[in-house]
Amino acid sequence: MTLIIDCHGHYTTAPPQLAEWRDRQIAAIGEPAAVPKPSELAISDDDIRETIEANQLRLMNERGNDMTLFSPRASFMAHHVGDFQVSSTWAAICNELCFRVSELFPDSFVPVAMLPQSPGVDPATCIPELVRCVEEYGCVGINLNPDPSGGHWTSPPLTDRHWYPIYEKMVEYDIPAMVHVSTSCNPAFHTTGAHYLNADTTAFMQLLQGDLFEDFPGLRFLIPHGGGAVPYHWGRFRGLAQAMEKPLLEEHLLNNIFFDTCVYHQPGIDLLNTVIPVDNVLFASEMIGAVRGIDPTTGHHYDDTKRYIDASAILTADEKHRIFETNTRRVFPRLDALLKARGI
Amino acid sequence: MTLIIDCHGHYTTAPPQLAEWRDRQIAAIGEPAAVPKPSELAISDDDIRETIEANQLRLMNERGNDMTLFSPRASFMAHHVGDFQVSSTWAAICNELCFRVSELFPDSFVPVAMLPQSPGVDPATCIPELVRCVEEYGCVGINLNPDPSGGHWTSPPLTDRHWYPIYEKMVEYDIPAMVHVSTSCNPAFHTTGAHYLNADTTAFMQLLQGDLFEDFPGLRFLIPHGGGAVPYHWGRFRGLAQAMEKPLLEEHLLNNIFFDTCVYHQPGIDLLNTVIPVDNVLFASEMIGAVRGIDPTTGHHYDDTKRYIDASAILTADEKHRIFETNTRRVFPRLDALLKARGI
Repeated sequence: MTLIIDCHGHYTTAPPQLAEWRDRQIAAIGEPAAVPKPSELAISDDDIRETIEANQLRLMNERGNDMTLFSPRASFMAHHVGDFQVSSTWAAICNELCFRVSELFPDSFVPVAMLPQSPGVDPATCIPELVRCVEEYGCVGINLNPDPSGGHWTSPPLTDRHWYPIYEKMVEYDIPAMVHVSTSCNPAFHTTGAHYLNADTTAFMQLLQGDLFEDFPGLRFLIPHGGGAVPYHWGRFRGLAQAMEKPLLEEHLLNNIFFDTCVYHQPGIDLLNTVIPVDNVLFASEMIGAVRGIDPTTGHHYDDTKRYIDASAILTADEKHRIFETNTRRVFPRLDALLKARGI
Repeated sequence: MTLIIDCHGHYTTAPPQLAEWRDRQIAAIGEPAAVPKPSELAISDDDIRETIEANQLRLMNERGNDMTLFSPRASFMAHHVGDFQVSSTWAAICNELCFRVSELFPDSFVPVAMLPQSPGVDPATCIPELVRCVEEYGCVGINLNPDPSGGHWTSPPLTDRHWYPIYEKMVEYDIPAMVHVSTSCNPAFHTTGAHYLNADTTAFMQLLQGDLFEDFPGLRFLIPHGGGAVPYHWGRFRGLAQAMEKPLLEEHLLNNIFFDTCVYHQPGIDLLNTVIPVDNVLFASEMIGAVRGIDPTTGHHYDDTKRYIDASAILTADEKHRIFETNTRRVFPRLDALLKARGI
């Protein structure tokens, strides 16, 4: 029996009041008197139930996905907007909303936190929200944005000590981070068609260049969207590591870096499972997200990634089980503990 | 009989005098009296012969590659350095050097031009150098840098009218452009491990978002490095195009966009040839370039991409012939004319 865990879901279908409140918050930047209070945002449990039941939960049931690790909408994090106070209020609201989803649908959703990052601000400022999310909301992981500037890439690489306060807390709580950017405000980069994939590739290469996991042997990163360009160029990355006299990638990075399966066609998933060791692959779909349509060549949703894993001729039944469940429970120990407490 | 044409080679092994002259040029920025003259750079034909025979030509012979389309070293273009005058002098020197290589080894090297781009400068300023390269040096294509800022991405997307002067000249001469960035001066992006691949993905997505080829039906772009993340995420791009109500990618982009085979392992090449129509794939290795080592899993150079095409179980003999020769002659009509004039 396999529990199908989707490790990459966002609350992309939140009630419209959320976006309206955010619009007011953004409009009030620089006008303290106009700043809306969090208490002015009214979303009822029924509002939440409705948006989840009609969307994510409906599709999960149709596809046979049992559970989703659920975080605030990635493109709405928009850390580049306003200052730390703006991000802080916004993150608190979005995280609470995902917590409420997990309370209303405990069998189906487990929360993952966004952080109140802001360009040029010390990431240590994110710790209080991170602590609240883990301790009060039961979040089992976080999303970490390597580029809070939104496409201008003004932050130091992930190997820089700049990020260490977050890493220390991740190690303390034994939680992984998905490395996930938000909306691009650089017109060169389409958000979901370029910026997301570029960020995945960029983060992997930053980690390859450095030796971060010598300082943090237990730190774990999940690179979404199938690792950006990385598996397709696995030979290039092996060769670059070799030229830099790094250990083999298996030893240098693969104890600490994992890839999700948000790759929206069979040949891509097959490539992923050809080059990346099975224990480094975690099932995910990021539905309802960037690509919501039905693939005319298959008649199924592009982002119904479970079909590609099910159909894989490369993976054994046991390997599929590891991708669907075991690996995610191992990478997210707080999820595993939660499931065990429920006798699962 | 197949002529094996590598459509992506750079003069990465130029005599050391070139880098020394460039260092002097950079040191003299802001000090007009110290600017070195182009005539102070002395590289003899023997210097050129030596660097080519010991390097590119030796490997071409070992691997069975007959001919390379040869342009100045991509990472040395460094368009972000100095102003237009600096780029202009530098491009003229580098292009002349590739022309001399093609004169000394006419059977093996055909020149492709770099442009004297400079951040914030109208691309029309590149036209005189482009004209010289085509008319005097016989260049059969150009390299176009979508981000002359070197990793800050301050230029408008490739679909913007900003770039039209270059496109008009490309159409007039019937030459394609390889979309190729240079060194990243943004510490977030490793040059060959992130910036190159990100640029490939970014350029493709810019072209997907726009309708550039309605204005320029005959314009042709070559996306290097196997198209960055694009073939691996072909389902994502098909789905994004569908959501934007664009035509199918075959119709929307594949009459005008081509991918090279600079993917340094067999599974990556196989993925490329599974999802991208064979007529859109052009043989290339970018040797001697980013990845110079020997893959311990095969005992051969990572960048000996001919081996992967030769070994492909996906491609028929005729399809391999098209990738090695026919497609490149079609995408580079001036190369085809040159070969025909030689009876090839």
